[in-house]
Amino acid sequence: MAIRTIDVRERVMARNDQLATGVREQLGRAGVPAFNLVSSPGAGKTALLERTLADLGRAVRIAVVTGDVQTQNDADRLAQHTDRLVQAVVTNGACHLDALQVATALGAIDLEATDLVFIENVGNLVCPASWDLGETGKIVLLSVTEGEDKPLKYPTAFRRAATLVLTKLDLMPHVSFSLERAVQCALEINPDLQVLFTSTILPEGLEEWYGFLRAQLHRRRAA
Amino acid sequence: MAIRTIDVRERVMARNDQLATGVREQLGRAGVPAFNLVSSPGAGKTALLERTLADLGRAVRIAVVTGDVQTQNDADRLAQHTDRLVQAVVTNGACHLDALQVATALGAIDLEATDLVFIENVGNLVCPASWDLGETGKIVLLSVTEGEDKPLKYPTAFRRAATLVLTKLDLMPHVSFSLERAVQCALEINPDLQVLFTSTILPEGLEEWYGFLRAQLHRRRAA
Repeated sequence: MAIRTIDVRERVMARNDQLATGVREQLGRAGVPAFNLVSSPGAGKTALLERTLADLGRAVRIAVVTGDVQTQNDADRLAQHTDRLVQAVVTNGACHLDALQVATALGAIDLEATDLVFIENVGNLVCPASWDLGETGKIVLLSVTEGEDKPLKYPTAFRRAATLVLTKLDLMPHVSFSLERAVQCALEINPDLQVLFTSTILPEGLEEWYGFLRAQLHRRRAA
Repeated sequence: MAIRTIDVRERVMARNDQLATGVREQLGRAGVPAFNLVSSPGAGKTALLERTLADLGRAVRIAVVTGDVQTQNDADRLAQHTDRLVQAVVTNGACHLDALQVATALGAIDLEATDLVFIENVGNLVCPASWDLGETGKIVLLSVTEGEDKPLKYPTAFRRAATLVLTKLDLMPHVSFSLERAVQCALEINPDLQVLFTSTILPEGLEEWYGFLRAQLHRRRAA
Protein backbone atom coordinates (compact mmCIF):
# COMPACT_ATOMS: atom_id res chain seq x y z
CA MET A 1 0.00 0.00 0.00
CA ALA A 2 2.70 2.48 1.07
CA ILE A 3 4.84 1.36 -1.85
CA ARG A 4 2.03 1.94 -4.33
CA THR A 5 1.47 5.46 -2.98
CA ILE A 6 5.11 6.35 -3.39
CA ASP A 7 5.13 4.82 -6.85
CA VAL A 8 2.22 6.97 -8.02
CA ARG A 9 3.60 10.06 -6.32
CA GLU A 10 6.96 9.55 -7.99
CA ARG A 11 5.33 9.23 -11.37
CA VAL A 12 3.24 12.37 -10.82
CA MET A 13 6.38 14.22 -9.73
CA ALA A 14 8.35 12.95 -12.73
CA ARG A 15 5.62 14.17 -15.08
CA ASN A 16 5.62 17.51 -13.27
CA ASP A 17 9.40 17.83 -13.62
CA GLN A 18 9.14 17.10 -17.34
CA LEU A 19 6.59 19.90 -17.74
CA ALA A 20 8.72 22.19 -15.57
CA THR A 21 11.68 21.61 -17.85
CA GLY A 22 9.49 22.69 -20.77
CA VAL A 23 8.48 25.86 -18.94
CA ARG A 24 12.13 26.61 -18.08
CA GLU A 25 13.17 26.21 -21.72
CA GLN A 26 10.29 28.43 -22.90
CA LEU A 27 11.24 31.17 -20.42
CA GLY A 28 14.93 30.79 -21.34
CA ARG A 29 14.22 31.19 -25.06
CA ALA A 30 12.23 34.35 -24.35
CA GLY A 31 14.89 35.60 -21.91
CA VAL A 32 12.27 36.25 -19.22
CA PRO A 33 13.07 35.54 -15.57
CA ALA A 34 10.20 34.03 -13.56
CA PHE A 35 10.04 33.98 -9.77
CA ASN A 36 7.95 31.55 -7.76
CA LEU A 37 6.76 33.24 -4.55
CA VAL A 38 6.22 30.83 -1.66
CA SER A 39 5.09 31.64 1.89
CA SER A 40 2.49 31.11 4.60
CA PRO A 41 -0.93 32.57 3.93
CA GLY A 42 -0.81 36.21 4.96
CA ALA A 43 2.95 36.74 4.73
CA GLY A 44 2.35 39.46 2.17
CA LYS A 45 2.90 37.98 -1.29
CA THR A 46 -0.02 39.83 -2.86
CA ALA A 47 0.76 43.12 -1.07
CA LEU A 48 4.36 42.96 -2.31
CA LEU A 49 3.19 42.32 -5.88
CA GLU A 50 0.56 45.08 -5.68
CA ARG A 51 3.20 47.64 -4.77
CA THR A 52 5.68 46.25 -7.29
CA LEU A 53 3.15 46.48 -10.12
CA ALA A 54 2.18 50.00 -9.05
CA ASP A 55 5.80 51.21 -8.74
CA LEU A 56 7.58 49.37 -11.59
CA GLY A 57 4.67 48.55 -13.87
CA ARG A 58 5.39 51.42 -16.27
CA ALA A 59 9.09 50.65 -16.71
CA VAL A 60 8.99 46.85 -16.47
CA ARG A 61 6.48 44.69 -18.32
CA ILE A 62 5.41 42.32 -15.54
CA ALA A 63 3.11 39.32 -15.98
CA VAL A 64 1.61 37.51 -13.01
CA VAL A 65 0.31 33.98 -12.56
CA THR A 66 -1.45 33.72 -9.22
CA GLY A 67 -2.71 30.54 -7.58
CA ASP A 68 -5.40 30.16 -4.97
CA VAL A 69 -7.23 27.17 -3.55
CA GLN A 70 -10.48 29.05 -4.11
CA THR A 71 -11.46 32.58 -5.29
CA GLN A 72 -9.72 34.92 -7.71
CA ASN A 73 -9.32 37.55 -4.97
CA ASP A 74 -5.56 37.90 -5.38
CA ALA A 75 -5.83 38.16 -9.16
CA ASP A 76 -8.55 40.80 -8.78
CA ARG A 77 -6.41 42.79 -6.34
CA LEU A 78 -3.42 42.68 -8.67
CA ALA A 79 -5.39 43.51 -11.80
CA GLN A 80 -6.23 46.90 -10.29
CA HIS A 81 -2.55 47.86 -10.54
CA THR A 82 -1.78 46.79 -14.08
CA ASP A 83 -3.30 46.61 -17.51
CA ARG A 84 -1.19 43.54 -18.16
CA LEU A 85 -2.63 40.07 -18.00
CA VAL A 86 -3.00 38.55 -14.55
CA GLN A 87 -3.59 34.83 -14.88
CA ALA A 88 -5.65 33.32 -12.05
CA VAL A 89 -5.27 29.61 -11.33
CA VAL A 90 -7.84 28.16 -8.95
CA THR A 91 -6.40 24.88 -7.67
CA ASN A 92 -9.78 23.64 -6.40
CA GLY A 93 -8.51 22.26 -3.14
CA ALA A 94 -4.95 21.44 -4.17
CA CYS A 95 -2.33 22.86 -1.85
CA HIS A 96 0.21 24.06 -4.42
CA LEU A 97 0.61 25.06 -8.04
CA ASP A 98 2.04 22.50 -10.45
CA ALA A 99 3.99 22.88 -13.69
CA LEU A 100 1.01 21.97 -15.86
CA GLN A 101 -0.99 24.88 -14.42
CA VAL A 102 1.92 27.26 -14.97
CA ALA A 103 2.55 25.99 -18.50
CA THR A 104 -1.14 26.49 -19.30
CA ALA A 105 -1.19 29.98 -17.78
CA LEU A 106 1.99 30.99 -19.65
CA GLY A 107 0.32 29.88 -22.88
CA ALA A 108 -1.97 32.90 -22.57
CA ILE A 109 0.89 35.36 -21.92
CA ASP A 110 2.91 36.99 -24.71
CA LEU A 111 6.42 36.35 -23.39
CA GLU A 112 8.00 38.39 -26.22
CA ALA A 113 6.29 41.44 -24.72
CA THR A 114 7.15 40.53 -21.11
CA ASP A 115 10.21 41.42 -19.02
CA LEU A 116 9.44 39.57 -15.81
CA VAL A 117 7.02 36.90 -14.58
CA PHE A 118 5.85 36.41 -11.01
CA ILE A 119 4.20 33.16 -10.02
CA GLU A 120 2.32 33.69 -6.76
CA ASN A 121 1.94 30.23 -5.28
CA VAL A 122 -0.82 29.02 -2.94
CA GLY A 123 -0.22 30.29 0.60
CA ASN A 124 1.44 27.24 2.13
CA LEU A 125 4.98 26.84 3.44
CA VAL A 126 5.07 23.05 3.01
CA CYS A 127 3.80 21.57 -0.25
CA PRO A 128 4.69 24.26 -2.83
CA ALA A 129 8.35 23.89 -1.84
CA SER A 130 8.57 20.46 -3.46
CA TRP A 131 7.05 21.30 -6.83
CA ASP A 132 9.29 22.62 -9.59
CA LEU A 133 7.29 25.04 -11.75
CA GLY A 134 10.10 25.74 -14.21
CA GLU A 135 10.82 29.02 -12.44
CA THR A 136 14.14 30.87 -12.58
CA GLY A 137 14.17 30.91 -8.80
CA LYS A 138 12.03 30.43 -5.74
CA ILE A 139 11.55 33.39 -3.41
CA VAL A 140 10.37 32.56 0.11
CA LEU A 141 8.62 35.28 2.14
CA LEU A 142 8.61 35.40 5.94
CA SER A 143 6.79 38.11 7.87
CA VAL A 144 7.99 39.46 11.21
CA THR A 145 4.65 38.45 12.75
CA GLU A 146 5.62 34.78 12.32
CA GLY A 147 8.22 32.95 14.43
CA GLU A 148 11.94 33.32 13.82
CA ASP A 149 12.34 29.53 13.75
CA LYS A 150 10.10 29.00 10.72
CA PRO A 151 13.12 28.12 8.50
CA LEU A 152 14.01 25.26 10.88
CA LYS A 153 10.41 24.03 11.03
CA TYR A 154 9.74 24.26 7.28
CA PRO A 155 13.24 23.65 5.92
CA THR A 156 12.44 22.60 2.34
CA ALA A 157 10.98 25.97 1.36
CA PHE A 158 14.05 27.77 2.68
CA ARG A 159 16.49 25.22 1.25
CA ARG A 160 15.07 25.41 -2.27
CA ALA A 161 14.72 29.18 -2.37
CA ALA A 162 17.53 31.41 -3.63
CA THR A 163 16.06 34.50 -1.96
CA LEU A 164 14.40 35.21 1.37
CA VAL A 165 12.21 38.31 1.60
CA LEU A 166 11.48 39.38 5.16
CA THR A 167 8.20 41.32 5.10
CA LYS A 168 6.22 43.74 7.29
CA LEU A 169 9.29 45.32 8.91
CA ASP A 170 7.02 48.26 9.83
CA LEU A 171 5.54 45.97 12.53
CA MET A 172 8.91 45.37 14.23
CA PRO A 173 8.22 47.83 17.10
CA HIS A 174 5.03 45.92 17.98
CA VAL A 175 6.18 42.30 17.89
CA SER A 176 8.87 40.31 19.65
CA PHE A 177 10.82 39.18 16.61
CA SER A 178 14.59 39.10 16.25
CA LEU A 179 15.69 39.75 12.67
CA GLU A 180 19.13 38.49 13.59
CA ARG A 181 17.79 35.17 14.86
CA ALA A 182 15.47 34.74 11.85
CA VAL A 183 18.34 35.31 9.43
CA GLN A 184 20.54 32.98 11.45
CA CYS A 185 17.90 30.21 11.28
CA ALA A 186 17.50 30.75 7.54
CA LEU A 187 21.24 30.64 6.83
CA GLU A 188 21.57 27.54 8.96
CA ILE A 189 19.22 25.80 6.52
CA ASN A 190 20.60 27.48 3.40
CA PRO A 191 23.91 29.39 3.67
CA ASP A 192 23.55 30.71 0.09
CA LEU A 193 20.22 32.43 0.71
CA GLN A 194 20.13 36.09 -0.27
CA VAL A 195 18.15 38.01 2.34
CA LEU A 196 16.10 41.15 1.57
CA PHE A 197 14.36 43.30 4.17
CA THR A 198 11.06 44.88 3.11
CA SER A 199 8.03 46.84 4.16
CA THR A 200 5.25 47.97 1.85
CA ILE A 201 4.52 50.83 4.30
CA LEU A 202 7.87 52.29 5.42
CA PRO A 203 9.52 54.88 3.15
CA GLU A 204 12.11 53.13 0.99
CA GLY A 205 10.78 49.85 2.40
CA LEU A 206 11.02 48.25 -1.05
CA GLU A 207 14.36 49.68 -2.23
CA GLU A 208 16.28 46.44 -1.62
CA TRP A 209 13.57 44.45 -3.35
CA TYR A 210 13.54 46.71 -6.40
CA GLY A 211 17.34 46.60 -6.51
CA PHE A 212 17.18 42.82 -6.55
CA LEU A 213 14.62 42.80 -9.38
CA ARG A 214 16.62 45.30 -11.46
CA ALA A 215 19.74 43.15 -11.05
CA GLN A 216 17.82 40.13 -12.34
CA LEU A 217 16.66 42.06 -15.40
CA HIS A 218 20.16 43.36 -16.15
CA ARG A 219 21.62 39.91 -15.78
CA ARG A 220 19.14 38.60 -18.33
CA ARG A 221 19.75 41.44 -20.74
CA ALA A 222 23.51 40.96 -20.51
CA ALA A 223 23.19 37.21 -21.15
CA MET B 1 -2.99 7.73 -14.16
CA ALA B 2 -5.26 10.31 -12.60
CA ILE B 3 -7.71 7.55 -11.73
CA ARG B 4 -5.03 5.50 -10.01
CA THR B 5 -3.92 8.49 -7.94
CA ILE B 6 -7.45 9.11 -6.74
CA ASP B 7 -7.90 5.44 -6.01
CA VAL B 8 -4.82 5.30 -3.78
CA ARG B 9 -5.68 8.61 -2.13
CA GLU B 10 -9.17 7.36 -1.37
CA ARG B 11 -7.82 4.21 0.19
CA VAL B 12 -5.32 6.15 2.31
CA MET B 13 -8.12 8.48 3.41
CA ALA B 14 -10.43 5.54 4.20
CA ARG B 15 -7.72 3.96 6.38
CA ASN B 16 -7.18 7.32 8.09
CA ASP B 17 -10.91 7.69 8.78
CA GLN B 18 -11.00 4.20 10.29
CA LEU B 19 -8.14 5.11 12.63
CA ALA B 20 -9.81 8.45 13.42
CA THR B 21 -12.98 6.62 14.43
CA GLY B 22 -10.89 4.56 16.84
CA VAL B 23 -9.35 7.72 18.34
CA ARG B 24 -12.81 9.30 18.69
CA GLU B 25 -14.15 6.21 20.51
CA GLN B 26 -11.13 6.14 22.80
CA LEU B 27 -11.53 9.82 23.70
CA GLY B 28 -15.29 9.32 24.13
CA ARG B 29 -14.82 6.41 26.55
CA ALA B 30 -12.40 8.51 28.61
CA GLY B 31 -14.70 11.54 28.43
CA VAL B 32 -11.84 13.75 27.25
CA PRO B 33 -12.47 16.46 24.64
CA ALA B 34 -9.68 16.90 22.07
CA PHE B 35 -9.26 19.95 19.87
CA ASN B 36 -7.36 19.98 16.60
CA LEU B 37 -5.75 23.41 16.08
CA VAL B 38 -5.33 24.35 12.44
CA SER B 39 -3.87 27.57 11.01
CA SER B 40 -1.18 29.16 8.84
CA PRO B 41 2.34 29.00 10.21
CA GLY B 42 2.76 31.89 12.62
CA ALA B 43 -0.92 32.47 13.44
CA GLY B 44 -0.16 31.82 17.09
CA LYS B 45 -1.11 28.22 17.88
CA THR B 46 1.91 27.61 20.09
CA ALA B 47 1.66 31.01 21.81
CA LEU B 48 -2.02 30.35 22.63
CA LEU B 49 -1.18 26.93 24.06
CA GLU B 50 1.80 28.29 26.04
CA ARG B 51 -0.45 30.82 27.80
CA THR B 52 -3.25 28.28 28.24
CA LEU B 53 -0.91 25.78 29.90
CA ALA B 54 0.55 28.51 32.11
CA ASP B 55 -2.86 29.89 33.14
CA LEU B 56 -5.03 26.75 33.37
CA GLY B 57 -2.42 24.05 33.82
CA ARG B 58 -2.93 23.77 37.58
CA ALA B 59 -6.72 23.45 37.42
CA VAL B 60 -7.08 21.51 34.17
CA ARG B 61 -5.01 18.48 33.28
CA ILE B 62 -4.03 19.29 29.70
CA ALA B 63 -2.17 16.97 27.33
CA VAL B 64 -0.70 18.20 24.07
CA VAL B 65 0.17 16.43 20.83
CA THR B 66 2.11 18.79 18.62
CA GLY B 67 3.09 18.18 14.99
CA ASP B 68 5.86 19.78 13.02
CA VAL B 69 7.42 19.05 9.65
CA GLN B 70 10.83 19.23 11.29
CA THR B 71 12.14 20.09 14.79
CA GLN B 72 10.55 19.66 18.21
CA ASN B 73 10.68 23.42 18.84
CA ASP B 74 6.96 23.74 19.61
CA ALA B 75 6.99 20.77 21.94
CA ASP B 76 10.06 22.19 23.72
CA ARG B 77 8.36 25.58 24.12
CA LEU B 78 5.21 23.99 25.53
CA ALA B 79 7.05 21.65 27.86
CA GLN B 80 8.40 24.67 29.75
CA HIS B 81 4.86 25.47 30.91
CA THR B 82 3.71 22.08 32.09
CA ASP B 83 4.97 18.97 33.79
CA ARG B 84 2.47 16.98 31.75
CA LEU B 85 3.46 15.00 28.72
CA VAL B 86 3.87 16.92 25.50
CA GLN B 87 3.98 14.50 22.60
CA ALA B 88 6.02 15.71 19.63
CA VAL B 89 5.23 14.27 16.21
CA VAL B 90 7.77 15.09 13.50
CA THR B 91 6.02 14.49 10.18
CA ASN B 92 9.31 14.41 8.20
CA GLY B 93 8.09 16.48 5.31
CA ALA B 94 4.39 15.61 5.43
CA CYS B 95 2.14 18.65 5.44
CA HIS B 96 -0.41 17.53 8.05
CA LEU B 97 -0.93 15.18 10.98
CA ASP B 98 -2.83 11.96 10.33
CA ALA B 99 -4.93 9.77 12.61
CA LEU B 100 -2.23 7.09 12.92
CA GLN B 101 0.20 9.65 14.34
CA VAL B 102 -2.42 10.90 16.79
CA ALA B 103 -3.46 7.37 17.82
CA THR B 104 0.21 6.53 18.44
CA ALA B 105 0.80 9.72 20.44
CA LEU B 106 -2.34 9.16 22.54
CA GLY B 107 -1.06 5.68 23.35
CA ALA B 108 1.61 7.35 25.52
CA ILE B 109 -0.88 9.61 27.33
CA ASP B 110 -2.86 8.49 30.39
CA LEU B 111 -6.34 9.67 29.33
CA GLU B 112 -7.84 8.69 32.71
CA ALA B 113 -5.66 11.41 34.26
CA THR B 114 -6.38 13.95 31.51
CA ASP B 115 -9.16 16.55 31.24
CA LEU B 116 -8.40 18.06 27.86
CA VAL B 117 -6.24 17.27 24.81
CA PHE B 118 -4.91 19.76 22.30
CA ILE B 119 -3.60 18.55 18.96
CA GLU B 120 -1.45 21.27 17.42
CA ASN B 121 -1.40 20.49 13.73
CA VAL B 122 1.34 21.40 11.22
CA GLY B 123 1.13 25.09 10.28
CA ASN B 124 -0.80 24.86 7.02
CA LEU B 125 -4.25 26.14 6.18
CA VAL B 126 -4.85 23.70 3.32
CA CYS B 127 -3.98 20.05 3.87
CA PRO B 128 -4.71 19.52 7.59
CA ALA B 129 -8.31 20.60 6.97
CA SER B 130 -9.08 17.38 5.09
CA TRP B 131 -7.67 14.90 7.61
CA ASP B 132 -9.90 13.66 10.41
CA LEU B 133 -7.79 12.98 13.49
CA GLY B 134 -10.66 11.73 15.64
CA GLU B 135 -10.83 15.09 17.37
CA THR B 136 -13.91 16.43 19.18
CA GLY B 137 -13.68 19.55 17.07
CA LYS B 138 -11.40 21.53 14.79
CA ILE B 139 -10.40 25.03 15.86
CA VAL B 140 -9.10 27.30 13.12
CA LEU B 141 -6.90 30.26 14.07
CA LEU B 142 -6.61 33.45 12.02
CA SER B 143 -4.34 36.31 13.02
CA VAL B 144 -5.14 39.95 12.30
CA THR B 145 -1.84 40.21 10.39
CA GLU B 146 -3.30 37.95 7.69
CA GLY B 147 -5.95 38.98 5.15
CA GLU B 148 -9.65 39.16 6.04
CA ASP B 149 -10.51 37.04 3.00
CA LYS B 150 -8.56 33.97 4.16
CA PRO B 151 -11.82 32.03 4.87
CA LEU B 152 -12.89 32.50 1.24
CA LYS B 153 -9.47 31.50 -0.09
CA TYR B 154 -9.04 28.46 2.19
CA PRO B 155 -12.67 27.44 2.70
CA THR B 156 -12.25 23.82 3.81
CA ALA B 157 -10.44 24.72 7.03
CA PHE B 158 -13.17 27.20 7.96
CA ARG B 159 -16.01 24.91 6.84
CA ARG B 160 -14.82 21.93 8.90
CA ALA B 161 -13.99 23.93 12.03
CA ALA B 162 -16.58 24.49 14.76
CA THR B 163 -14.65 27.40 16.23
CA LEU B 164 -12.68 30.33 14.82
CA VAL B 165 -10.11 31.95 17.09
CA LEU B 166 -9.01 35.38 15.90
CA THR B 167 -5.53 36.00 17.31
CA LYS B 168 -3.11 38.90 17.93
CA LEU B 169 -5.84 41.49 18.51
CA ASP B 170 -3.16 43.61 20.24
CA LEU B 171 -1.78 44.36 16.75
CA MET B 172 -5.10 45.84 15.50
CA PRO B 173 -3.90 49.47 15.85
CA HIS B 174 -0.94 48.73 13.57
CA VAL B 175 -2.54 46.77 10.72
CA SER B 176 -5.32 47.47 8.27
CA PHE B 177 -7.60 44.59 9.18
CA SER B 178 -11.36 44.72 9.56
CA LEU B 179 -12.60 42.27 12.20
CA GLU B 180 -16.10 42.76 10.86
CA ARG B 181 -15.11 41.78 7.33
CA ALA B 182 -13.07 38.80 8.54
CA VAL B 183 -16.01 37.48 10.58
CA GLN B 184 -18.35 38.12 7.65
CA CYS B 185 -16.09 36.10 5.31
CA ALA B 186 -15.87 33.28 7.85
CA LEU B 187 -19.64 33.10 8.42
CA GLU B 188 -20.22 33.16 4.68
CA ILE B 189 -18.27 29.89 4.48
CA ASN B 190 -19.64 28.45 7.74
CA PRO B 191 -22.65 30.16 9.36
CA ASP B 192 -22.37 27.92 12.46
CA LEU B 193 -18.82 28.96 13.27
CA GLN B 194 -18.33 30.18 16.84
CA VAL B 195 -15.96 33.17 16.81
CA LEU B 196 -13.60 34.01 19.68
CA PHE B 197 -11.43 37.13 19.86
CA THR B 198 -8.05 36.72 21.54
CA SER B 199 -4.74 38.29 22.36
CA THR B 200 -2.00 36.69 24.42
CA ILE B 201 -0.75 40.19 25.33
CA LEU B 202 -3.79 42.36 26.10
CA PRO B 203 -5.24 42.16 29.63
CA GLU B 204 -8.19 39.74 29.60
CA GLY B 205 -7.21 38.88 26.02
CA LEU B 206 -7.86 35.20 26.67
CA GLU B 207 -11.07 35.45 28.73
CA GLU B 208 -13.34 34.39 25.86
CA TRP B 209 -11.03 31.51 25.02
CA TYR B 210 -10.91 30.26 28.61
CA GLY B 211 -14.70 30.60 28.86
CA PHE B 212 -15.02 28.44 25.75
CA LEU B 213 -12.68 25.79 27.17
CA ARG B 214 -14.49 25.72 30.54
CA ALA B 215 -17.82 25.27 28.74
CA GLN B 216 -16.38 22.27 26.88
CA LEU B 217 -15.19 20.69 30.12
CA HIS B 218 -18.54 21.25 31.88
CA ARG B 219 -20.40 19.82 28.92
CA ARG B 220 -18.28 16.68 29.13
CA ARG B 221 -18.69 16.36 32.88
CA ALA B 222 -22.46 16.79 32.61
CA ALA B 223 -22.68 14.12 29.87
